[in-house]
Parts: sequence; structure tokens; C-alpha cells
Amino acid sequence: MDLNEIEKIIDAIKRNELGSGEAARRIRDSFYEDLGYARVDHSRASRQGFPEVVFGKGKTRAQVVGIVERLLQRSANLLVTHTDADTFGEIRNITTDAEWHETARLIRVVREPADRGVGTIAVVTAGTSDIPVAEEAALTAEAMGNRIDRIWDVGVAGIHRVIAERELLRQARVVVVAAGMEGALPSVVGGLVGVPVVAVPTSIGYGASFGGVAALLGMLNSCSSNVSVVNIDNGFGAGFVASLINRRWEPPVE
Amino acid sequence: MDLNEIEKIIDAIKRNELGSGEAARRIRDSFYEDLGYARVDHSRASRQGFPEVVFGKGKTRAQVVGIVERLLQRSANLLVTHTDADTFGEIRNITTDAEWHETARLIRVVREPADRGVGTIAVVTAGTSDIPVAEEAALTAEAMGNRIDRIWDVGVAGIHRVIAERELLRQARVVVVAAGMEGALPSVVGGLVGVPVVAVPTSIGYGASFGGVAALLGMLNSCSSNVSVVNIDNGFGAGFVASLINRRWEPPVE
Amino acid sequence: MDLNEIEKIIDAIKRNELGSGEAARRIRDSFYEDLGYARVDHSRASRQGFPEVVFGKGKTRAQVVGIVERLLQRSANLLVTHTDADTFGEIRNITTDAEWHETARLIRVVREPADRGVGTIAVVTAGTSDIPVAEEAALTAEAMGNRIDRIWDVGVAGIHRVIAERELLRQARVVVVAAGMEGALPSVVGGLVGVPVVAVPTSIGYGASFGGVAALLGMLNSCSSNVSVVNIDNGFGAGFVASLINRRWEPPVE
Amino acid sequence: MDLNEIEKIIDAIKRNELGSGEAARRIRDSFYEDLGYARVDHSRASRQGFPEVVFGKGKTRAQVVGIVERLLQRSANLLVTHTDADTFGEIRNITTDAEWHETARLIRVVREPADRGVGTIAVVTAGTSDIPVAEEAALTAEAMGNRIDRIWDVGVAGIHRVIAERELLRQARVVVVAAGMEGALPSVVGGLVGVPVVAVPTSIGYGASFGGVAALLGMLNSCSSNVSVVNIDNGFGAGFVASLINRRWEPPVE
Amino acid sequence: MDLNEIEKIIDAIKRNELGSGEAARRIRDSFYEDLGYARVDHSRASRQGFPEVVFGKGKTRAQVVGIVERLLQRSANLLVTHTDADTFGEIRNITTDAEWHETARLIRVVREPADRGVGTIAVVTAGTSDIPVAEEAALTAEAMGNRIDRIWDVGVAGIHRVIAERELLRQARVVVVAAGMEGALPSVVGGLVGVPVVAVPTSIGYGASFGGVAALLGMLNSCSSNVSVVNIDNGFGAGFVASLINRRWEPPVE
Amino acid sequence: MDLNEIEKIIDAIKRNELGSGEAARRIRDSFYEDLGYARVDHSRASRQGFPEVVFGKGKTRAQVVGIVERLLQRSANLLVTHTDADTFGEIRNITTDAEWHETARLIRVVREPADRGVGTIAVVTAGTSDIPVAEEAALTAEAMGNRIDRIWDVGVAGIHRVIAERELLRQARVVVVAAGMEGALPSVVGGLVGVPVVAVPTSIGYGASFGGVAALLGMLNSCSSNVSVVNIDNGFGAGFVASLINRRWEPPVE
Amino acid sequence: MDLNEIEKIIDAIKRNELGSGEAARRIRDSFYEDLGYARVDHSRASRQGFPEVVFGKGKTRAQVVGIVERLLQRSANLLVTHTDADTFGEIRNITTDAEWHETARLIRVVREPADRGVGTIAVVTAGTSDIPVAEEAALTAEAMGNRIDRIWDVGVAGIHRVIAERELLRQARVVVVAAGMEGALPSVVGGLVGVPVVAVPTSIGYGASFGGVAALLGMLNSCSSNVSVVNIDNGFGAGFVASLINRRWEPPVE
Amino acid sequence: MDLNEIEKIIDAIKRNELGSGEAARRIRDSFYEDLGYARVDHSRASRQGFPEVVFGKGKTRAQVVGIVERLLQRSANLLVTHTDADTFGEIRNITTDAEWHETARLIRVVREPADRGVGTIAVVTAGTSDIPVAEEAALTAEAMGNRIDRIWDVGVAGIHRVIAERELLRQARVVVVAAGMEGALPSVVGGLVGVPVVAVPTSIGYGASFGGVAALLGMLNSCSSNVSVVNIDNGFGAGFVASLINRRWEPPVE
Repeated sequence: MDLNEIEKIIDAIKRNELGSGEAARRIRDSFYEDLGYARVDHSRASRQGFPEVVFGKGKTRAQVVGIVERLLQRSANLLVTHTDADTFGEIRNITTDAEWHETARLIRVVREPADRGVGTIAVVTAGTSDIPVAEEAALTAEAMGNRIDRIWDVGVAGIHRVIAERELLRQARVVVVAAGMEGALPSVVGGLVGVPVVAVPTSIGYGASFGGVAALLGMLNSCSSNVSVVNIDNGFGAGFVASLINRRWEPPVE
Repeated sequence: MDLNEIEKIIDAIKRNELGSGEAARRIRDSFYEDLGYARVDHSRASRQGFPEVVFGKGKTRAQVVGIVERLLQRSANLLVTHTDADTFGEIRNITTDAEWHETARLIRVVREPADRGVGTIAVVTAGTSDIPVAEEAALTAEAMGNRIDRIWDVGVAGIHRVIAERELLRQARVVVVAAGMEGALPSVVGGLVGVPVVAVPTSIGYGASFGGVAALLGMLNSCSSNVSVVNIDNGFGAGFVASLINRRWEPPVE
Repeated sequence: MDLNEIEKIIDAIKRNELGSGEAARRIRDSFYEDLGYARVDHSRASRQGFPEVVFGKGKTRAQVVGIVERLLQRSANLLVTHTDADTFGEIRNITTDAEWHETARLIRVVREPADRGVGTIAVVTAGTSDIPVAEEAALTAEAMGNRIDRIWDVGVAGIHRVIAERELLRQARVVVVAAGMEGALPSVVGGLVGVPVVAVPTSIGYGASFGGVAALLGMLNSCSSNVSVVNIDNGFGAGFVASLINRRWEPPVE
Repeated sequence: MDLNEIEKIIDAIKRNELGSGEAARRIRDSFYEDLGYARVDHSRASRQGFPEVVFGKGKTRAQVVGIVERLLQRSANLLVTHTDADTFGEIRNITTDAEWHETARLIRVVREPADRGVGTIAVVTAGTSDIPVAEEAALTAEAMGNRIDRIWDVGVAGIHRVIAERELLRQARVVVVAAGMEGALPSVVGGLVGVPVVAVPTSIGYGASFGGVAALLGMLNSCSSNVSVVNIDNGFGAGFVASLINRRWEPPVE
Repeated sequence: MDLNEIEKIIDAIKRNELGSGEAARRIRDSFYEDLGYARVDHSRASRQGFPEVVFGKGKTRAQVVGIVERLLQRSANLLVTHTDADTFGEIRNITTDAEWHETARLIRVVREPADRGVGTIAVVTAGTSDIPVAEEAALTAEAMGNRIDRIWDVGVAGIHRVIAERELLRQARVVVVAAGMEGALPSVVGGLVGVPVVAVPTSIGYGASFGGVAALLGMLNSCSSNVSVVNIDNGFGAGFVASLINRRWEPPVE
Repeated sequence: MDLNEIEKIIDAIKRNELGSGEAARRIRDSFYEDLGYARVDHSRASRQGFPEVVFGKGKTRAQVVGIVERLLQRSANLLVTHTDADTFGEIRNITTDAEWHETARLIRVVREPADRGVGTIAVVTAGTSDIPVAEEAALTAEAMGNRIDRIWDVGVAGIHRVIAERELLRQARVVVVAAGMEGALPSVVGGLVGVPVVAVPTSIGYGASFGGVAALLGMLNSCSSNVSVVNIDNGFGAGFVASLINRRWEPPVE
Repeated sequence: MDLNEIEKIIDAIKRNELGSGEAARRIRDSFYEDLGYARVDHSRASRQGFPEVVFGKGKTRAQVVGIVERLLQRSANLLVTHTDADTFGEIRNITTDAEWHETARLIRVVREPADRGVGTIAVVTAGTSDIPVAEEAALTAEAMGNRIDRIWDVGVAGIHRVIAERELLRQARVVVVAAGMEGALPSVVGGLVGVPVVAVPTSIGYGASFGGVAALLGMLNSCSSNVSVVNIDNGFGAGFVASLINRRWEPPVE
Repeated sequence: MDLNEIEKIIDAIKRNELGSGEAARRIRDSFYEDLGYARVDHSRASRQGFPEVVFGKGKTRAQVVGIVERLLQRSANLLVTHTDADTFGEIRNITTDAEWHETARLIRVVREPADRGVGTIAVVTAGTSDIPVAEEAALTAEAMGNRIDRIWDVGVAGIHRVIAERELLRQARVVVVAAGMEGALPSVVGGLVGVPVVAVPTSIGYGASFGGVAALLGMLNSCSSNVSVVNIDNGFGAGFVASLINRRWEPPVE
């Protein structure tokens, strides 16, 4: 919540310039806009200095486009995840700044780039098939103002591959690791670095991988204490958490 | 790995002062000490500037005490988690600096306190029964040089309780949230703050809570993007990750 | 069972106007009509004063249409759930009163509207993607004679959105809450109101949401005591239970 | 929240009789009292006209007694669930009105009985072993001002037993059904009555009953549309929901 | 194994008319014919007096037709389950006695009908959608020489429907019950009859039915002691077991 | 239901010798006796010609003894399963005919032995540890008037052991097979005999046996079509079903 | 790692012919080639004397072809698993030695055949539907220089079929067994031979086979001690492990 | 089966020195001895040249001792696993050669040591807590005539620990790896060696380790192709399989 705005309304109450009903309505409106099928949140991005994000899956194309249209009126930067090329086509009609990223199936609008990170974020995959999820993390973190080092295909069956990248890993303020199958890579990476590791299990595998559950359990039970975990295939969440960890931080002034 | 030490050995190889076999042995020894039943890692703590940690469960008391003895010879600070009062009694014989924390079932030795955090860490519980796990997180983070704000019993069934603590939450650089049952609190807290939330599901509940699985799944599926998760009842891990997020960071010089 | 009808048959037995075999057959026939593939229940609706309901999935189109035809001969109101537009086309040939609801994939016939509720029913969703399930609940409850307040997209990650609707929630005699992912919204709503909350988990989510299981478990473990739960995506059941709670009630006279 | 009290504080703000900081503190205090390990909620009961409830499991005895002491200062009626006879002994020292119910392992204080129900609540079990859970539901509902009809041991393997009680079931405004094993009884009862059925699965059974999961799944998939479900062994929750359904209801005046 | 044939071979060994190698080969050949991709068992049907059965799923069409061709040379009766109309087309070219059953997706050849049952077999479904599985059971049992009573759509939500068929159920030597969703019908039927009930869970349902698991667990935990269970959707198995129970039995003479 | 008794009451109604209320009460009483905590069923045994059975687990000792006392007044034969030696001590005070079977933890009273089976029942175990469950099946079937062949410890890892017992297996009208771990024995036995096999998984095993789930799944997926399954460790159920299969059967006269 | 190559580099360091940076780069390059989306490992095959393997699923066709192209420049033999005929078409353009195996969906290039096995490998299936997985194992083991005995369709329901092949099984140094449904065959085979059995569960089955989980659990709980298990449908892994067991072994000289 | 013995019996049949019945009995007796509760297998060990093994759990102490007594009459070497010190006390009375291994809870009798392995077996653990399971594997393999290298506590969080032991690992003909928690070590070890890796998951861990399931799934999904898996905590099985892989092998002469 934007406390300054609220404080002004309270002052107006005190000065008797504002009735209770009207005051309540104004406070509510400052938070979000109601489209009927969605409440578009205009305060979150300004609150956190980050782009707005729309999760595309489960919404109709018209809903996605409608939300995007409203968000772009107030927000410079935006991500649409879990979407498709046709939706991109319609959004391209609204703003020519939109980019389509096929691998990650993600639309990105960055009209006001910024450098908000104290260090780099290393994004690592165990295999080639994990790249789409990792790329979603990397694109998200870039949109949130971070420099990224991409390190693909360094799974633990050839342990020398990840050890060879140790120097690059150690430059990072935070590491994102995407892995399917047994999900062992975050534990190994976690032992090589002294910073937080955000592990994202992928649904890559078959049989007893159970759509990523094996990797998820492996990561939750990691013997490296610096590992925390997000949902299966949640590249966006991993990139988001990593960005928050990497950002230059000062206690909020309210 | 301590690169300086390795570099010295490599220089000695170049100067022909050191044979290959002896060089290999020295490099190996710089990493850990072999007690037979355990390889005590002398490099991890110095590497990361953090206390050594012994996970007590699954080891015999003699093993725990043996490992602790060795670690205390080189490390000022130490945690023993998942342990008991009798083990504490024996460790008290080794060092009088040891403290016993009954609620978290944790032994702590802090002989060289430090202030390593850029902000405070808020540790939050949904209910009274979640306190032991949360306390483990808080004690860990304190041992790693952080200031903690403890906020107990603010579960979502009385949403005004957590909203009332919003100011305190917003002062934090990172928030740890421990919750059992439906595990909904991290999502709500995640929406109130703009920093990372480390969620730790607890095994509190019965029936379809399945020993913390319901809370774990709730947290993994959080609609707040700033939430990452550690294992059920892993208060130590949550405190450890939160400490890494909160520490003053500079790129490692190797 | 319609006791009056049975009593008449018993009287006829006493008066020796009716043989045992014939009596048995008549009693049986008063309950349902046997179409071969289905036993159409003619007594349930009259018993409960509610519309007949046909669950479309798993039946052939011919079976659905056949059952509907028979039911419409005795019942004024009717719902077909989990169906499709082509089935609607055929039912439209039987009665022009049929309406097609695309979002909820539901056919509705309300030829005798009624107002049976003591208050309103609030139907709430956590996100935009939960609307189809919630809409099934709302349409069902409307068909059963209730006034509905629809409150869409007030998930817990932006807790101010649901708090802003507190007044509307408090006017309700019962609240239906549809949520996927972590399924936390019923707990929060449950804490805001003093009436029953019927929680319906949706299959919205991915990865460790396991098709709605995470939301289901979250709701079953709700720390709000006024929450009860129906099956994943069972919007119809939620609307039905909510209608029974909201109806004006008198002890049955038999 | 008690709106009247808040309104008075707001009026005081307007009259400049109250500073912002003091106002905030007073509003917060009206909600709950902070015991350190628990936030005792003083507004919930008054809000809902129901007894306070303490869930005993997972809290130390001292914590339970401390919370009870505070609650009894403001609330006439109280339940402690999942507790034991020794805790009862200590609470008996605080108030001689406390009753101990061995079967349900529940302490009850009812100093201000009331009749709040529009009808009776039928509480039904499938077997003898389900009685403790059902009794918890019945005692809860009694404490909330309802008349109860207890119908024990009418499981579906002897279908004539439940059919024989049809008259009693039909007098009820709401039915609670506790069943373990296959959990089929709520479906049968649901077909016999036209009111809501609150199903509570019990952990009675062995092998593939998985501690009540089989019964839980059976109830969630009930083919009777008037069934909703609470957590395994959650007799309290079933009694609570049933009481809310049965209470005489008027829209809240705020 | 056909002991007479083996005995003859042993006698031939004793009379030195047969070498060891040749004897072994002959014994082996009497059991089955090796098609490369399948070992066609020529002794099973003669051993048990039942038709040969081919499970179509997971085999190529050519494999199914090849096996059928070989079996029909020695066996009068045959079933192909989990197959399709095109396979039927090819088998029709081999024998014009083949019948196609669309509902059960089953091909049946009965060239030597027999009456082998001591009583009738009742086959019962809870709903209309369970008919395909039940029909597979009924067609199997008919092919094995039994008279069948089909009782469709008598699920427990309308308990009077199954009670109305009590007379028919009591004529049966064994009852097959197919049910999805909560799978409660076998328990009720089990209580109404004094003969074995073979329960077959179906995958009918959605959400927490988990493709028939809820029904399966319900049936395994049945409180009626006369219920045993086969795999989800295994109508064939249910019909086969029921036929074995119903057959006129004499101890085998070997 | 005992139709003769009911018919007499109906006749009395016709002759006006009996009022409706009294008639209803008499009919109900003929079914069971209500002990408060249990409805003792007096008609089931007479209906099926079998002993009464009390499941001991989950009932207090006083409840078990109370139910037994009532049953023994009307029933000659009785089983108490899942019970203990102390309960046996108290039941011994009621009847000296009671036997205690330590291995199966079962009390048995057989005052009227009978020979009701058309053949023998073979009861088979895979290992020594499965004997308690198998013994429960065997004792049950003996109490129901069957001759039993016990075949212990013939698991599939030494396939010659079960093949060596083929003759004995072939004499049986039905085979009960108890197996833990991978639960493969029923499939092998099923292939050796032409009669129904009742498979009972046991909880014997560790690790991925999951308390009998691995064996249960193995049996449900048996490639032998004559296998049906009861709950894990349900020796009683297996013995009961086997007895029903083996009994001399005639269509009920009603 | 190829120690000789490394040793040469170390010698060059000692002779001051090589700077540290250049030395590090050379060592890294000797391990793998970085294609951007994949790190092609050039040392694994030479290390183990086996063909390179590419897992096709989850990679784009262009990625698979690119990796294959690079591998074929240094490696004589190669497998591509989980691939399709179109990919084969493109690889056929690179090398005419490529073979397409439709059943196993596998591409094989064997330009330098070898005989590396001490004995034969028997590959066994329970049913016809398990052949694709078994064929993947057989083709892999052939490519690794082994002679194979294929034994198809000898599942345990006709136990004489596998016993008849005992001689062939006993000639093998290691046995691979592929089975779906209850997965019992490895236990039986394990009891017949004195060599390791590599069990591979297949996803063949339906209902409670849960995509191969039932077979997997059966194999993990095998009562035959010589059984170890690979992932569901992992024919390649089974063939690979069997080849390593069968190869002529000498301690590596480094 | 001991073919020589059988052949002699067949010769005696041919010479008419032996009747059929007597011949059958003799053949059967050569396989095992029936103790009533167990069939003691006298042919397995001689068949495979390995010690007899008794699994202690689930058997009474008297049963274990009885079986051991019988086995020691014919077999020089013997293992009792999952047993206790008191059982050891009784077995010590039978043979003074018995050794008690507390860590592994295993009794071992080796009266005829042998060296049967072509190389060494490396047994590796991830942590100190995994030692009991690993020790069971090592003791089993020793009893089967192998030399063992024990490598304890080299989990992947400190990857330099396992890399430091690479030389020792490469000397092994087969490697056993015991690991709990995320079970990642077999994948790393598998990448370092060119021989089979037998992975044994342990139940070490808590929360989402689910008693070893997380480790089991990790190992089944290993990206190293040379890994096969045994049951959770099945150290005996791992040692047994490793011994079979390591033994000097010649095709059986029958």
C-alpha cells in the first residue's frame, strides 16, 4: 500500500474535507482497477520497483490482452509468462516494444531498463532440456534489472563440467539452478558457493520422475544448507526471488 | 576451496620443492579431517564466514561429541541441531560457552559474535505450535550475526493479526515464515512485503496435513512470487538461507 | 420417498383393494423411471424443491438428451453440467427455455423461478482462472432460487483486495470460495465472516499443484473452523450445498 | 472486527482527542491480547456469539492453561479440544464449571447456555469406533446452543439400520456423519435427506484406509450433492460448521 | 499342465522309445506355440474349459490378429478385450462368428456355447457411465457359459433403487458391482446378499477420484466382509472371477 | 432380512391385529439390538448361516465384551478379530468354549461345527512372516465350516517350492494367498489352478513396500485373471470370501 | 578424466612451457566441447570404451542432430534413444551407417563392432507389450559389444513358459527382465539363476498400475536378492548396466 | 536345482530301480526341508556358492534360531540380517563362530572364507548416518568372498571429498553407494567410474524425505547410466548384487 497517498486521505478526513464513505472509496481505488474478470493491481509494481507480470495459462487470450492493455498505461515494464505467439501478435499491436521469446514462451516489455543488482545472477541448467525453464528465470531477472551469466548443461553425471565453471559461479550474488530427473545439481552447486541457491525443479524426465516430483524432493532434501526451492517449472519465480536477493536494498521508508 | 593455499602448493611444485604425491596429499588435507565415521570439513566455515553445523539426528551421541570436539579446535562458532539435553551435557564438558535451547532442541556456541546483516530478519509463525521450528531458524540466524524480530501466532484465520505487524515486517531485509496446517501465511506475508520470503512448512496438523505435506504444497504453489521454500520442519535451513540473503555481500576474491 | 403416496398404497392393501405384487410394483414406479441405461429419478426434485441435475461427462450425447427429455416432462427446472454446445443444440430442440453458459459449460432451464434464500450467497474467486468453476456454483445457486454476489480475483497475494470486499462478504448467509494453487483464500475469508464457507478447490496451477490437490489439502487443513470442502472443480456441488444452507427451512412434515 | 468500537476511535480522531499513534494502538488492542507465545483473540467470540476454542495438541500444558485463563476473563463459554485429563485438572482449578469428556478428549465450559438453532442437528456414525470423533462434533454443537440427536453404528453394510432412522434424520436441519473405512455413509444419508450433510472422515480402519484417506476420498467423491467435507478426525470442525448452518440467521448489522 | 500327456512321454522314456532331448522338446511343445512376439498358450483353455482371451492394448493390430488366428485353430471360444472396430474388421475375415461389442470395446467368438453356471450372475452399476466396464464383465461371463442379470444405475445416493432390486440380487450365486466416484455400492450390495461380491472400481469421476483410486480404496476398505476387488476398469477380470465362482465344480482328476 | 417374519407382521396388519406404529417397531426390532454404542445385528448370521464377527480394534474392551455377550445369546459361533489375550480372559468368563489363537490374535467360539464346503480351501503364504495373516484366514474359514490345507513359505524366489505343492493346490475349490513384499505369489498360483484365488497382501516388508502397498498393487495388477484382492492384512476377509465361494449353494427361497 | 593428457600438461607447467591460464584452458577443453545448448563430452566414450548416447526427448530436432554431428567426428559408435523417424532421416544424411529401429524408437551407429562380453546377456519380457523396452535394452547391449538371447512373453501367469527357458537363462552372465503390470517376473527369474538380474519396469498396464509404479515397487521389493532395478521404461539403462556387468574387466590403469 | 542329483534319480527310474512316487519324493526333498513355519532351502547356497541368509524381521526369535540351526548343518557360511543381540546370544550357543555386528544389526558366520572376487568392491556413504546400511552391504560382500574399500561421508555438498577418493573408486570392479536425503551421490560417483554402481537409498532424512523415498526417486532418475537401485535400507541386497557382479564367472555346467 502507498502510505503517502493514504496519509493524505487521513489528513483530509481530519480537516473534514472528506466524508467517511468517500474516503473509503478513494483508498480502495488507489489499489487496483476492476476489469470484471480481474483486479488489475496498479500499486504492486510501484511498490516494489519491478515490472508487472501476467500469468497467461488459464486465461482467455482476450483476458490476457485486456489486462496487458491496462497495465501498460501505468507501468513501463511487463512480462507475460506461459503464453503463445498469437497472443504476442495481439500485444504487438498495443506496443511495438514487446519481444517474443520462443524458448521460454514469454512476452517481455522493457521500456525503462535499470541496473538494480549488486552482483550478477548465475543461471545454471543440468541438461539441454532444462533450458526453457532456466531461460524464463533469466529473462525475468534481466527484466528486473540484473546481469545474468548463463551456464547450460553441467549436470552431475559429468561433475568436471560444473567444477570447470566454479569461477563464474563464485562471482554471482545468487545462483539459480534448474534441473530435472534426480535434481542433484543444486546440492553440488550449493557446496561450491557461499551465496543463496534458488533451485527450480523441471518436469524433464520420465517414469519415476513423476513430472518433476523426483527433482523437487531431491532439492527439498538437499544436504547443502543454502538451497531453497520454488515450484516445478517455475522459472519465473526463481528469477523473481533471485532478483530480490540481488537488489540493492535499503529499509523501506513509509 | 582455499585458493591461496592451493596456489602456494602449486608454486612449490614449480620450484620442485614438492613431489607430486606429497602435493596431492597436502591439498587433500587442507579440506577436511577424516574421523573414520565422518569427514570434518575445516574449510567450509572459513569459506563462508559462518559457524559450523552438526545435524544430530541419526548419529550416535559419541559421534556428535567427537565431531564437535574437532570442529571447536578450529571454529569459534558452532550449532548442533536435532539433538538432546544429554548431548548438551557432554558438550558442556568441552566448552562452557555452549547454550542449550530446549524449545528448538539445539546447542549453540557463539564465541565470536559478529554483525553481518544489512537489515533485520523477521521470523514469523502462523501458530503457537510452530514456534519450535521458527525458533530454530531464529537461533541459527542470530548465530550467523543477524538481528531478529520474532512475530508469533499471526495465522491467516485472523488476518488482522498479521496486518497489524506490517510495519515490523517492512523493516526486514528478508522474512522467514513457519506455518503448518494449510501453510497459507507465506502467501499473505509475501504480498505485504517487497523482499524475499523463506517459507518453512511445519509438521503441525493432523489428518490430511500428512505431516506437513499440505503446508509444503501450499507454499510451493504460493501465488506470491517472492516465496521460496525449504524442507518440512527445516528451521535451520530457513535461518541459514535468510542469513545469506541478509549478509553484506561483496564478490569473493579468490 | 413421497410418504403420502406410499400411505395410500398401504391403505389400499388394508382395504384389500391391492395385491401384494401390484402394490410393490406401484411403490417402485413412484420412485423412478427405468430408461435401460439410467433410472430417472422423478421424486428427488419434488422432495427437495430443487431442479433436476444431469452430470454430462461419461454419458453419450444420446443418453444425456434422453434423460433430459424425460425429466422435463415432470420437472420445471433443470441443469446439465460438464456438457458441450452441441448437446445444448439438441436440447434447444426440446425446449426453447434452455440457456447455454459457455464459461461454466452448463445448460440451464429455469421455467419456474423462485426466491428461496434467506440471504445472499457470495461467490468468490482467488484468480481469473478460477471463474469457470465459480460460475458453475453461481449458476447452480441461482437456479435453486438464490441471489448471488460475484466477487472475482481477490487472492491472498494482494490481501487488500479481499479485505476491501468485507462489507459485501458480511451480507452473505453463506460464502462459496473457489481457489487453485495454494488454496489459501477460504481460510482468510473464513476469518472475516461468521457464516459457513464452502470451499471448492480448482485444478488451476501447475507442477506441485497436482491438478488441484495442493488447494484441496490447504482447504481441508484450514485454520478457520467454518470451512467445509467439496471435490476439486466441483462448482456445482458448492453451489448446491450453499443453496441448502441459505434456504428458508422448516422441519419436513411427513 | 467490532465496528462500533473502531468508529468511536475514528470519531475521537476527528475531534482531535486522540493522536494517530495512540489511535492505532487502541484499535490493535481491541482485537487480541499478546501472551508472547499466542495472540489471544478477544473479538472472535463476541463477533460470532460462539464459545472460544483452544486446540490443545502441539501446545505445552502451561500454554493451554495460560490461554484458557485469559479467555475465561472475557468469554462465558469455552472448549479445549485434543487435550488430556491432567490439563483438565489444572483448568478445574481456574473454574469449577469445566467438564471433562473422556471419549472425545475435550474440556467444555458452558456458563451461558443458549438455544441458537432453528432445528436439531443429527450426528451419525458408521461404527462404534467412530464415536469419539462424532462425540467431539456433538459436544461442540451443544456448546454452541444446539439440540443434538445421536445415531450411532448405522454403517452401510447393514443398510436397514440407517433406513430405520430415516424419520429422525428428516427432523434435522443439518446432519453430521462420521465414518472411517470406505466412508460411504454420508452418500447414503445424503440421499435420504434434503438438508446439508457435513461429512467427517475418521482414521478408523487399517491397511489401505491410510489413516482415513480412503474415507476422505470417498466423501469428496460422494454422488450425493448435499455433502461437504472437513478434515480427517475433525469432529470439532464438523460440529462448528453444522452449528453455523443451524443457527437462526440475520444479516449482520455493522 | 496336461498330466496324461506328460505321463505318456515318461512311459516312453521308460520303454527307451524316446531320448531325453526329444522328450524334453515334446513336453515343452505341448504347452504353447512360440510366435516370436508371443507364446500362444494352447493348454490353458482346455485346462479350465474357458475361452482364450487376448488383451488388445499395447499390442500392434498385426500381433493381435496373429495371436487370434493361432488360437482359433484349437479353441472354439475367444475374447479380445481393449480393442477397436478396425481390428474386428480383420478378425471378421478369419471367422464370421466374431461379434463386435462397441460399448465394451470387445470382440467375442462363441462357437461352442455351454451352460456352466450353478446360478445366475448379477452385474450391477452405480451409474450410467459405469456401463462399459460392467458390460465387459457381463459379456465375459456370458462367453464363459453363465446367465446374467444386468442391473444398471442403482447408485447409493438413491438407496431405494438398489433396495428395489433386492429380489433379483438374491437369486444370484455371485454379484459383480461396477462403481466409480466413491465406490460405495459394493458395501451396500454386500450387506444385502449372502454370496461373494466382486467389486470393480471404474475410472469414472473427476478431481479427487484420481482416475478410480477413490473407488478402489473404498472397495478395499469395505465394511461388508463378502467383497473382494479387482483392478480399476477391469471388467474382464470381474467377469472371469465371477464365472469361476459360479461354475459347477468338481475336484480336478489329474 | 427375514422375509417370513416380516410377512407375518404384514398379515397381522391386514387382519387389523396390529397397529402401524407397533408393526414398524416389531419389524425394526427383528433386525438388531441397540446397545447404545453398537447395534448388534441378530439377523446377519441366521441369514447367512455363518458365525457372528466382532472387529476388536478401535473398540474399548468393555464394548467388545458387551457385544460378545449379546451375540452369544443368539448365535452358536463367533469370532473376535484384532483383539488381545486380556479380552480373551474376560470372554472366557462368559463361555468356556472360547479359544485363543495367539498367532492370529483372534478369539473363536465354535459351539455348532458344520461342514459346509464343497471342497477344501488351500491357504498359502509366501514367507514365514505372512503366517499370522494367513492363519486368521484359515481360522475364519474353519469356523465357517471348511476344511483347510495350509501351505506355508512357498514364495516365488524359490519357484520349485510352490510347484511342488501343485497337487494339493489343485484339490482346492478356492485358494487364499497371503504375501507381502512384491506380492507376486498370487499370480503364480493363479496360473497353476483353475479356481478363484483370493489374494491378501500383508504389511510384511520395509522401505518401498510402504506397509503392504507394493504387494497390494502387485495383486491388483495380476496377470492371472482368476485373482481378486482384499485389504492389506485382511486375513479375516480373505477367509470369509473363500468360505462363501466354497459353500454348497442353492438359490435363496424367500 | 584422461590422466595422461593432464599429466602432460602438468609436465609442461613444470618445464615452464605453459602459463597457468593457458594450462587451465587446455585441461578444460580436453573434457568437452560447448555447443551453447549442450556440452558434448568427448572423453566419456574413450574412457569407458562404449558408444556415445544422446537422449532425444526434450531436445529439439536441430539440437539432436547438432550433437550427433559433433559426436560422430570423434566416436565410432553412437545411440540416439527416445527419438523418431524424421530425426533418423536427417542423421542418415550425416552417416549412412545409421540404422533405424522402429520398435525401440532408437537410432544406432556401429562403425567399430567389438566383442567385449564374457558371456551372453539374456533379455526377457513378461508379455508382448514389453518388447519395445526390452528391445531398447538389447540394441544398447549389442552396440556395446554383447551377444544377446531374446526371450519374449514368459510372464508368471504361465510359469511353465519361463521354466522351459531355464537352460538359456543359465548360460547368461547377466539377465535383463522387462515387465509391466505386477512386475513379478524378475523375482522368479532371480530365483532360477545365480547371476545379477537387472529389472526394468514398464509402463504397460492400466488402472492401479499407475504407469509402471506397481511394477517398479514389485521389483524393488523382490524377494530374490540378486535383483536391482532401473527407472520405468529405461531399457537403455538396463542394457547399459548389463553390458558393464558382462564386460571383461581389468582394473583401470591411470 | 542340482542337475546331477536329478539325473541320477532319472537314471534310477530308467533302470526300474525306483518307482515314480518315490522318485518324486526324493527330488522334492533334495530342494528344501520343511520346518512347518518355513521351508529351509538347502540347494540355493550350493547352487550359487554363497552363504545362506535369514531375514530376521517379522519372524519370532524361536523361528530364526530354528532355521539357523538347520542351515548350519549343511552350510558353512551364514548371515542373519535385521536381527538383535539377544538372538545372537542364542545362536552363539549353536556355533561359536558367530559374530555380532552392532552397527548393521547383523549376525555373521564365516567358517569357510574364500576369495571369489575379480576386483575390490568400494562401499561409499554420503553421510555418517548412512553407515549402518553401508556396513550391512560391506559385511555381506565380505561374507561372499570379496575385498572391500569403505569410503564414508563423502556427500555431494562437499564435492571435493568424493573427488579426492577417485583413485580408490577407480580400482573397484563395482561400487555400492548408500545415501539418504536427496540421494545424489550415486549420480556423481557414476560419472567418475566406468563400472556398475549399485545405489541403495537410506531412510535418513526428515520431512519431505518420506523415509527414503526422495533418495530412492533420485537414484531411479539418475542421469548416470551405470546406476541400478535396490530397496530403501537394503544394504544386504546391495552387497549381494555387488558380489555377483564382482565374482569370477564361468558359464554354469549343468
